[in-house]
Amino acid sequence: MVTVGIIGAGRIGKVHIESITNYVPNARIKALADPFMSEDTAKWAKEHGIEVVTKDHKEIINDPEIQAVLICSSTDTHAPISIEAINAGKHVFCEKPIDHDVDKIHQVIDALKGKNLKYQVGFNRRFDHNFKALHDAVAAGKVGDPQIIKITSRDPEPPSPAYVAVSGGMFMDMTIHDFDMARFLAGCDAEEIYVQSAVLVDPEIGKAGDVDTAVITIKMKNGAMVVIDNCRKSVYGYDQRAEVFGSKGMVANANDSQSNVILSNAEGVTGEKPLFFFLERYMQAYADEIKSFIDAVENDKETVVNIDDGLKPVLMAMAANLSVKEHRPVKLSEVE
Amino acid sequence: MVTVGIIGAGRIGKVHIESITNYVPNARIKALADPFMSEDTAKWAKEHGIEVVTKDHKEIINDPEIQAVLICSSTDTHAPISIEAINAGKHVFCEKPIDHDVDKIHQVIDALKGKNLKYQVGFNRRFDHNFKALHDAVAAGKVGDPQIIKITSRDPEPPSPAYVAVSGGMFMDMTIHDFDMARFLAGCDAEEIYVQSAVLVDPEIGKAGDVDTAVITIKMKNGAMVVIDNCRKSVYGYDQRAEVFGSKGMVANANDSQSNVILSNAEGVTGEKPLFFFLERYMQAYADEIKSFIDAVENDKETVVNIDDGLKPVLMAMAANLSVKEHRPVKLSEVE
Amino acid sequence: MVTVGIIGAGRIGKVHIESITNYVPNARIKALADPFMSEDTAKWAKEHGIEVVTKDHKEIINDPEIQAVLICSSTDTHAPISIEAINAGKHVFCEKPIDHDVDKIHQVIDALKGKNLKYQVGFNRRFDHNFKALHDAVAAGKVGDPQIIKITSRDPEPPSPAYVAVSGGMFMDMTIHDFDMARFLAGCDAEEIYVQSAVLVDPEIGKAGDVDTAVITIKMKNGAMVVIDNCRKSVYGYDQRAEVFGSKGMVANANDSQSNVILSNAEGVTGEKPLFFFLERYMQAYADEIKSFIDAVENDKETVVNIDDGLKPVLMAMAANLSVKEHRPVKLSEVE
Amino acid sequence: MVTVGIIGAGRIGKVHIESITNYVPNARIKALADPFMSEDTAKWAKEHGIEVVTKDHKEIINDPEIQAVLICSSTDTHAPISIEAINAGKHVFCEKPIDHDVDKIHQVIDALKGKNLKYQVGFNRRFDHNFKALHDAVAAGKVGDPQIIKITSRDPEPPSPAYVAVSGGMFMDMTIHDFDMARFLAGCDAEEIYVQSAVLVDPEIGKAGDVDTAVITIKMKNGAMVVIDNCRKSVYGYDQRAEVFGSKGMVANANDSQSNVILSNAEGVTGEKPLFFFLERYMQAYADEIKSFIDAVENDKETVVNIDDGLKPVLMAMAANLSVKEHRPVKLSEVE
Repeated sequence: MVTVGIIGAGRIGKVHIESITNYVPNARIKALADPFMSEDTAKWAKEHGIEVVTKDHKEIINDPEIQAVLICSSTDTHAPISIEAINAGKHVFCEKPIDHDVDKIHQVIDALKGKNLKYQVGFNRRFDHNFKALHDAVAAGKVGDPQIIKITSRDPEPPSPAYVAVSGGMFMDMTIHDFDMARFLAGCDAEEIYVQSAVLVDPEIGKAGDVDTAVITIKMKNGAMVVIDNCRKSVYGYDQRAEVFGSKGMVANANDSQSNVILSNAEGVTGEKPLFFFLERYMQAYADEIKSFIDAVENDKETVVNIDDGLKPVLMAMAANLSVKEHRPVKLSEVE
Repeated sequence: MVTVGIIGAGRIGKVHIESITNYVPNARIKALADPFMSEDTAKWAKEHGIEVVTKDHKEIINDPEIQAVLICSSTDTHAPISIEAINAGKHVFCEKPIDHDVDKIHQVIDALKGKNLKYQVGFNRRFDHNFKALHDAVAAGKVGDPQIIKITSRDPEPPSPAYVAVSGGMFMDMTIHDFDMARFLAGCDAEEIYVQSAVLVDPEIGKAGDVDTAVITIKMKNGAMVVIDNCRKSVYGYDQRAEVFGSKGMVANANDSQSNVILSNAEGVTGEKPLFFFLERYMQAYADEIKSFIDAVENDKETVVNIDDGLKPVLMAMAANLSVKEHRPVKLSEVE
Repeated sequence: MVTVGIIGAGRIGKVHIESITNYVPNARIKALADPFMSEDTAKWAKEHGIEVVTKDHKEIINDPEIQAVLICSSTDTHAPISIEAINAGKHVFCEKPIDHDVDKIHQVIDALKGKNLKYQVGFNRRFDHNFKALHDAVAAGKVGDPQIIKITSRDPEPPSPAYVAVSGGMFMDMTIHDFDMARFLAGCDAEEIYVQSAVLVDPEIGKAGDVDTAVITIKMKNGAMVVIDNCRKSVYGYDQRAEVFGSKGMVANANDSQSNVILSNAEGVTGEKPLFFFLERYMQAYADEIKSFIDAVENDKETVVNIDDGLKPVLMAMAANLSVKEHRPVKLSEVE
Repeated sequence: MVTVGIIGAGRIGKVHIESITNYVPNARIKALADPFMSEDTAKWAKEHGIEVVTKDHKEIINDPEIQAVLICSSTDTHAPISIEAINAGKHVFCEKPIDHDVDKIHQVIDALKGKNLKYQVGFNRRFDHNFKALHDAVAAGKVGDPQIIKITSRDPEPPSPAYVAVSGGMFMDMTIHDFDMARFLAGCDAEEIYVQSAVLVDPEIGKAGDVDTAVITIKMKNGAMVVIDNCRKSVYGYDQRAEVFGSKGMVANANDSQSNVILSNAEGVTGEKPLFFFLERYMQAYADEIKSFIDAVENDKETVVNIDDGLKPVLMAMAANLSVKEHRPVKLSEVE
C-alpha cells in the first residue's frame, strides 16, 4: 500500500482522486493541498476518505508517512514542488509539462540524481487502450521498420484567449502530447522539426500571439517521418488517431464513441460522434497511468514515462516554436 | 465465339444485351425477339449491332447459326420456350423462376435428358463479388461446418399490388433468390421450412393475397440452420447481406454503396446508403453470370446454376407457401 | 446512502461487490452471506470494507439496518429468499432467472403485493451501452414501427455437461437474456414462439438432454418478428449483437473489442476479436444495473427491470421448450 | 459520335481502348499508332474494330476524319505531339505529365491560344468514385472552409531502378497525381511546399538519384494545409486515401477491395486487402475520364482537367525537388 499526497485540487487533481479511489486498491490518498482550496472541495475530499485537507502543500512535503506526491498544480509550480518533494525523499508523479523552461527541468533532473526515486510525467495517452495497442503492435515488429507515422489530434473546442495567453502556446500546451506520442510510437527521439501553422479558427488566438492549426513534420533519429496535424476546433468532437506505416504493414487506430450503434435511414448510414473530450476519452488512461506509477513505486520498477520523457517533448515544442519564427526546419540539437 | 439469340426485350433482356456488348467478347448477339417489340427498342438493338430484330421468337429457335438462347420473357413462357430451344439443339440461359409449377420444370428436365446442352438459371447473386466471396470462403472451409446462416434481403420499394397479383407471391418472386442463396452458401439442399410472415408494409399487398414481410427458418440437410428475413420496403435502400457462422469462424458480407466517403460533423459520422436496387447493385453479377454461361457453352463445362438449381428454390417456395397456409414447419419431401 | 446485504459470494456476487465499491457511492455493503463462505472470500470481503461476513443469510434478512438485498445465490434459492427478504421489508435485486418454475415466481409476485418495495431482476444487458443505445433509438421512434428484430447471442465456450444438466436447459439459462432483449427492443410481449434447434457443438450436451444451437422466431404482440440465433460455442469470442429494422430505418450495434487497432499487411486487414465473454463485455452494464437499482430504492422510482420482466422470459423459455418437444409454433397463452 | 485516334499502344493506351470500346458509346476509335507496334497488338487492335493500325502517328494527325487524339506515348513526346495535333485542329487528351519541362508545356499553351480546342490531362483520380465523392462534398460546403487536407498515396511495389532513372523522379512521376489531388480537393493553387524525404525502401533508388518515401506539406492559397505522404512500397497493396478537415466537419474516403467479406475466427476479424494497384483500383476512373473528355468535345464543354491543371502539378513537383535540394520551404513563385 502506497501512501499518497496530492498537490492541486483542480480538475485533473480530482480526476486522479477518483481514479485512485475507484481503481487503485494499493494506493491511499492521505492528504490534499491547494492554496485555493474551497469549502466544497474540502468537503468532497473528506467524503473520499482523505484525512488531511490543507491550503499548504508543505504539510504534504513534510509528512514522513507520505511516500509519493502527485503534482497537479499550475505549470509554473511543477518544477519547484518536484524538487521539494524529491529532496524530502518522495516519489513524484508530475502533470505535463514539467515546465516551459528546460533549465528548470534540468534542475529537477539534477535533484533526482543519485536518489532511487520514481518520477513519472503525466503523458496519459500512452495508457489509452487504443494508443497502447498501437504502440505494442509496432514494438512487437508487426509493421517492421516504422517509415511514416501520422498523428491526428484535434480538440472539440478552442481555449479562451485568456488561457491561450498563459498556456505557453499551442505546441507547449496541446501538441506536447503528440510530441510524446511521436517518440512513443517511433521508439526513438526526434532529430528535426518543421512546422506549418496558421490562425484559422479564432482571430483572438492570433492576437494572443498563438496559432490554432498546424501540420508538423518530424524526422526521427531512426529515419521514420512523423506528421502531426492539430486543430483547436473540431466540430465533430475530440479527434485522436494515429497510424504507423512500415516495411511490413500498417497499424491504425480510431476514435471511441459512446456506443457503436449505426442508424440506416433515408438520409444515410450514421454512427455516433467521437467521445467529446479528454475527460470522456481518457478516463481509463488516467486511471492506468496512476496504477502504473503506484506499481513502479511499490515494486521498484522504472516508470513508463520518466523525467527524460518529460524533457524531450518540451524541447520539441521549443524547436517547433523556432521553426514557426524562422520559417525553416529546425534541428533538435539547436535547442538542446 | 458463341452466337446468341435473346427472347424478351424488357428490362432484364436489355441488361443482358448491355453486358454481352461490353463484357463478353466471346459472345455475339445475332437476334432479339419480343412480341411487343417497340420501334425504339428495335432501333436501340440495331445500334447495339444486333442483326435480326423480330416479334417472333421462332426466328431465333429456327436459326441454325444461333447456338444459345437467353430467355428473358414473362415467367409463364419460360418452360415452353426452354423446351422449344432445347429441342432445336440450343443451349439455354433462362431467367428465374423457370416456372411456378414444378410439373413444367420437370418437362424441361425431361427435354434435356440425353442431350449435351447447357442450361443455366438466372440466379445472378451467386456471381456478385460479395456473395461469391462469402461462398468461396465457406467452400474453402474457412468457417468449418456451417451451423447458422443468416440472409437479409429487403427491397427498397414494394411492387404495385397489380404486380403482386401475378407475381406468384413473395416467396416465388423475391425470396426465391434467397432460397437459392441458402443452398449456395450451405452447399446442400433444404429439408424443412417454417415461415413467419405478415403484411406490415402495404395493406393492398395483403388484399392481393400476399405478404410483404417474413422471417423464414430452414433446416438444411447438413444440419445447418438458415434464417432469411425479407421485407418489401427498406427506406435506406436495397439491403442484401449474409453471414455464415460455423465451427471454425464466421464470414459476413455487407452492402455496397456508391462511394465509401464518410462525413463527420456535429450530427454524427455518416456514410452513404446502400446502392438503391438490383440494377445498381448487381450489374457486375449480371455480366459475370452471362460470361460464365458463355464459357460453359464454349468450353463444354457444367453451368454454375443448372436446371436442378432452378427447380429446388421453386420447391422451397412451395413449402414456404404451405407453411404459411398451415402455420407449421413443412418438409420439402411433402411438396416434391 | 442505501445499506445493502449480499447473499451469495460466487462470481456474480463478487462482480456486484466490486461494482458497488467502485462505482456506486450512494450504496454501502454492510453484509455478505454464503453458506460455503471460504476464508479467502471472507478476507477479501473484509478488505472491501464489508462489516458482516457470514454463512447464514438470515443475518442479512434480520438486520434492520439493511434496506436492500442482492440475491446472487443458486437459482433454486432465488424465490424463497426473495420472499423472506420481501417479508422482512427489504428491497430486492435478484439474479436471473427468478426461478425455472412460474408458480414460484408468482409466489414472489404475491409477496410483493401491497408493499412499496422495489424488485429488480438481473437482466444486465439492458444497461450495456450498445444495447441501451439501440433500445433508446427504437424507443425514440428512429426506426418507426419495428418489423424485424435480429438478436445474435453466441458464447465463446460451451458449459460443461455437468452444468448443462442442472442449468434448466439452454433456453432457460442462456436464451433467457435474449428473450428479455426481444421484449426490451420490441417494447412489448411475445405472442408465439417457434424453435429450430440442434446439437452441433458437443454431443455430450445432447446426452444431457439439451441443445447447443438454435434459431428462434418470435411473433411479438405489436406484429414485429424477432429472430434469435444462439450457439454455445463461437471460436472468435462472445458475439452479442442486435439489429432492429422498421418502417423508417434500421439500427444495429456491434461487438466491442479491447482496442480498435487495425493491422494491414500482406495477409489482409485485421482487427481484434470481440471481448472474450460476459465478464469482459458487460462490466459496465453490471455496474449500471446496480446504480439503477440503488437509484430506484433511494428515490422511490420504478425499477427498470421489474418482477414482470423477470417472469415473462421464463414463460418464453417454457414456450421454446414446448416448441422443441412438439415441433410446432407455440403460443405464449399455452404456457401462461 | 466523336472519331478518335490513339497514339501509343502501351499499357495505358490499351486501357483507353478497352474503356472506349466498352463504355463510351459516343466515341469510335478509328486509328492506333505506335512506332513499336507489335503484330500481336495490331491483331488485338483489329479485333477491337480499329480500322487503321500504324507505326506512324502522322497518319492520325493528318486524318481529317479524326476529331480527337489521345496521346499515350512516352512523356518526352507529349508536348510535341500535342502541338502537332492542336495545329491539325484536333482536340487532345494527353497522359500526365505533359512534360517535365514547363517551357514545353507553355509551348502547348501557346499553341492552344485562340483555338476552340479541348485539351484534357490524364489525372484520372479526379474521376474515381471515392475521390470524386470527396471533392463533391467539399465543393458543396459540407466541411466548411478546408483547413487540413491529408492525402495518402502508396504504391504496392517500387519501380525498377532503370525506370526510376528516366521517371523524372518520384515527385514528377508519382506525387504529381497527389499534387493534382491537393488542388482538386482544396479548390485552389499551392503557395509553398516543404518536403521531407528519404530512401527507406530500396537503396538502388537512392543510387539512381531519387527518393522513395516522403512527407510533403503544402500551404494552399486559401490557407488550407495539405500533407501528402508517399511511399513506393506498401506491402498491403495500393493505398489511396484522403481526408479533408474543415470548419464544419471532415470527409474521408477509404480504399476499395475486391469484396467486403469479413472473416472472424480465433486469429481476429479480417477483411481483404485494398485492390492491388492502379489497373485494379482506377478502371472505372479511366473510363469516366474518357467519357468526360468525349462529352466535352461533343458538347463543347470545358474539360474537367485542362491544360492549366496539367501545368500546375509540374510546377509543384519542381518546387518539391528544390525543397529537397535546399532543405527549406519553397514558394511556387520561385519556380514559375
